[in-house]
Amino acid sequence: MVRYADRAANVKPSTIREILHLTQQSEVISFAGGLPASDLFPIGRMREAADRVLSDAANLQYSITEGEVRLRELLAWQSAELADPSNFLVVSGSQQGLDLAGKLFVNPGDAVVVEAPTYLGALRAFDVYQATYVAVPSDGEGIEPSGVEQAFRNGARFLYLNPNFSNPTGRTMSERRRHQIVDLAEEFDAIVYEDDPYALLRFSGEFVPPMITMSSSNVLYAGSFSKILVPGLRLGWLSGPVPMIEKLTMIKQAADLHTSTTTQALAAEALADGFLERHVLQVRAYYLVQRDRMLQALTAHFPPGTTWTVPEGGMFIWVTLPVDLDATSLLSQAVAEGVAYVPGAQFFPNGGGSNTLRLAYSVATLVEIDQGIERLGRLIARSTS
Amino acid sequence: MVRYADRAANVKPSTIREILHLTQQSEVISFAGGLPASDLFPIGRMREAADRVLSDAANLQYSITEGEVRLRELLAWQSAELADPSNFLVVSGSQQGLDLAGKLFVNPGDAVVVEAPTYLGALRAFDVYQATYVAVPSDGEGIEPSGVEQAFRNGARFLYLNPNFSNPTGRTMSERRRHQIVDLAEEFDAIVYEDDPYALLRFSGEFVPPMITMSSSNVLYAGSFSKILVPGLRLGWLSGPVPMIEKLTMIKQAADLHTSTTTQALAAEALADGFLERHVLQVRAYYLVQRDRMLQALTAHFPPGTTWTVPEGGMFIWVTLPVDLDATSLLSQAVAEGVAYVPGAQFFPNGGGSNTLRLAYSVATLVEIDQGIERLGRLIARSTS
Repeated sequence: MVRYADRAANVKPSTIREILHLTQQSEVISFAGGLPASDLFPIGRMREAADRVLSDAANLQYSITEGEVRLRELLAWQSAELADPSNFLVVSGSQQGLDLAGKLFVNPGDAVVVEAPTYLGALRAFDVYQATYVAVPSDGEGIEPSGVEQAFRNGARFLYLNPNFSNPTGRTMSERRRHQIVDLAEEFDAIVYEDDPYALLRFSGEFVPPMITMSSSNVLYAGSFSKILVPGLRLGWLSGPVPMIEKLTMIKQAADLHTSTTTQALAAEALADGFLERHVLQVRAYYLVQRDRMLQALTAHFPPGTTWTVPEGGMFIWVTLPVDLDATSLLSQAVAEGVAYVPGAQFFPNGGGSNTLRLAYSVATLVEIDQGIERLGRLIARSTS
Repeated sequence: MVRYADRAANVKPSTIREILHLTQQSEVISFAGGLPASDLFPIGRMREAADRVLSDAANLQYSITEGEVRLRELLAWQSAELADPSNFLVVSGSQQGLDLAGKLFVNPGDAVVVEAPTYLGALRAFDVYQATYVAVPSDGEGIEPSGVEQAFRNGARFLYLNPNFSNPTGRTMSERRRHQIVDLAEEFDAIVYEDDPYALLRFSGEFVPPMITMSSSNVLYAGSFSKILVPGLRLGWLSGPVPMIEKLTMIKQAADLHTSTTTQALAAEALADGFLERHVLQVRAYYLVQRDRMLQALTAHFPPGTTWTVPEGGMFIWVTLPVDLDATSLLSQAVAEGVAYVPGAQFFPNGGGSNTLRLAYSVATLVEIDQGIERLGRLIARSTS
């Protein structure tokens, strides 16, 4: 038997993933995957960009680990507080940001502080570094400061948050709460990893400033082009204090040398001349229509005793079923009846949430939203009675 | 002070890198960087491929971690022994292969067996996992089996090799030696990581089969499109036994979800209809001319007492200076006189090789090769006397 490193024990296949794999080959209406709508991809613009970018061999050559200067300038220009390209590191999709941060901050056995529920991809990234988790509950404003403070007092120094239109709950952290959390991080010299891929997808409510604007030393911010341009380029970025970005750059160099020169040049070219500002208007309007349709369908078809969140942006609604229902065991039945979702228990690192589930309204058509929610509502009503 | 994980102590900036950075902004003829010649990049073909690829939104959407089926089929079809796509994992450049293997196989303090000298990028990747190194010497046929056996007896279970036209030495391992090493790996249930980015760049001598064809269980093979197509796409692959590829796939999913859908589609489209077979003929012929010119220049300008390798492929020549010369301290002078190389000591994980250096003949023009080698020869002659 070949011998694996200890950390490999934390790398396991997901049974849920296997069930959801089935939905791709069938007539199932899926609210499971967190994919952006491919209808929104600006393929004409991308082709024009490619034609220009690929006429220069430099865009096919090796490049520097930090990322293409043109792309980092575009990011720095967008960002109010971090105005210099040296505050930015281009990464191969925001999942790589999580991996690099896990490498830099997590020793085996270290406690990583997260909301419960929290983003699954973050848990999988930190699992590899043999993290343990302190799962802090949230209220209407976001993660509870008392729980975070307790975790920091007990020695934790790394807090992962997804503050805008969170995956999986769709909830947004209040400005007051953000200040409280940043103050705690500075007091204990802990790191807040601010994962913010949906920032530009706000379609209602008021803008809330990111935590990176509230601390010059203790916040590491992660952005992504996946939801605002296209995910297939695998492009994201980290921004933070220069010494931290430098350390992460060296770690990235050992991990993949640099992110594709070609995809970076494509994105920079496609986003030039204010295209991003125009394009996100369309993306927001599209998702607002999708969200509203799903909220209407939920009201029409879900039985009393179920509740759900009303996101102000992003792609997700979080549903809480009557407490005796188990969304994980319900999934096979739902798939058999032609509708899929992600059971919420997945998102709780230390257990709980068995009566919760996540719905993505980003990819289904409006008619599919009606039909799928009706099917699911019927199943839940039948299971409750 | 923010607290980093223990492994971050192994992540350090390179002073050599800083010196070589200088060479990019000046009149220095550089034999330092291991870049492929951008003159060889098939930009017309890439633009045509992009035009087709980017008319389908699916090529800009999320994809599966394993890699695009079309690309893995192309790889499987090329490979004599591993004929199924499930034996392949597409990675974001071959550097990512090293990182994933480090994650899967290396516990803190584990001994990784390498040749001395060996590829620097591999050392940097394994450093992050707190590897220690057993540096085994090589003879004309490659790494010495007695040293490998001794390391395995002492508990090491992971051997890194770059058997064809090695970076940095340009040397190739004999077939007999490959069999000996694979037999040892099977006896001790160790892993041979066969890093083979230059495989298709043989321009003289006889083909030697890769070790992956000699063992169905103990070899993990890494290939790359960087030297045979373009490096800017950041595309490589791992191939090996299915259970190992599955484990690496889960690890990759946590690291970056998947490699860019777009770059994979671009490569698959560009390489279709036998383009790769035609294109590598040109690449080989080009590098043969470059190598011959550098060998001639070395014979003409280097003083007695210096020796060098004669690679049968790839991009590198390894120079051994008189034993009292230190190539590291000579570098600043060389750069001041308008020529750059990589000091060999870099490539020895446990010290040694101070009188060695690596020359890349891939990017300089023929005239630059003459001039640069003449400058370097003069400097060495002056330093020797």
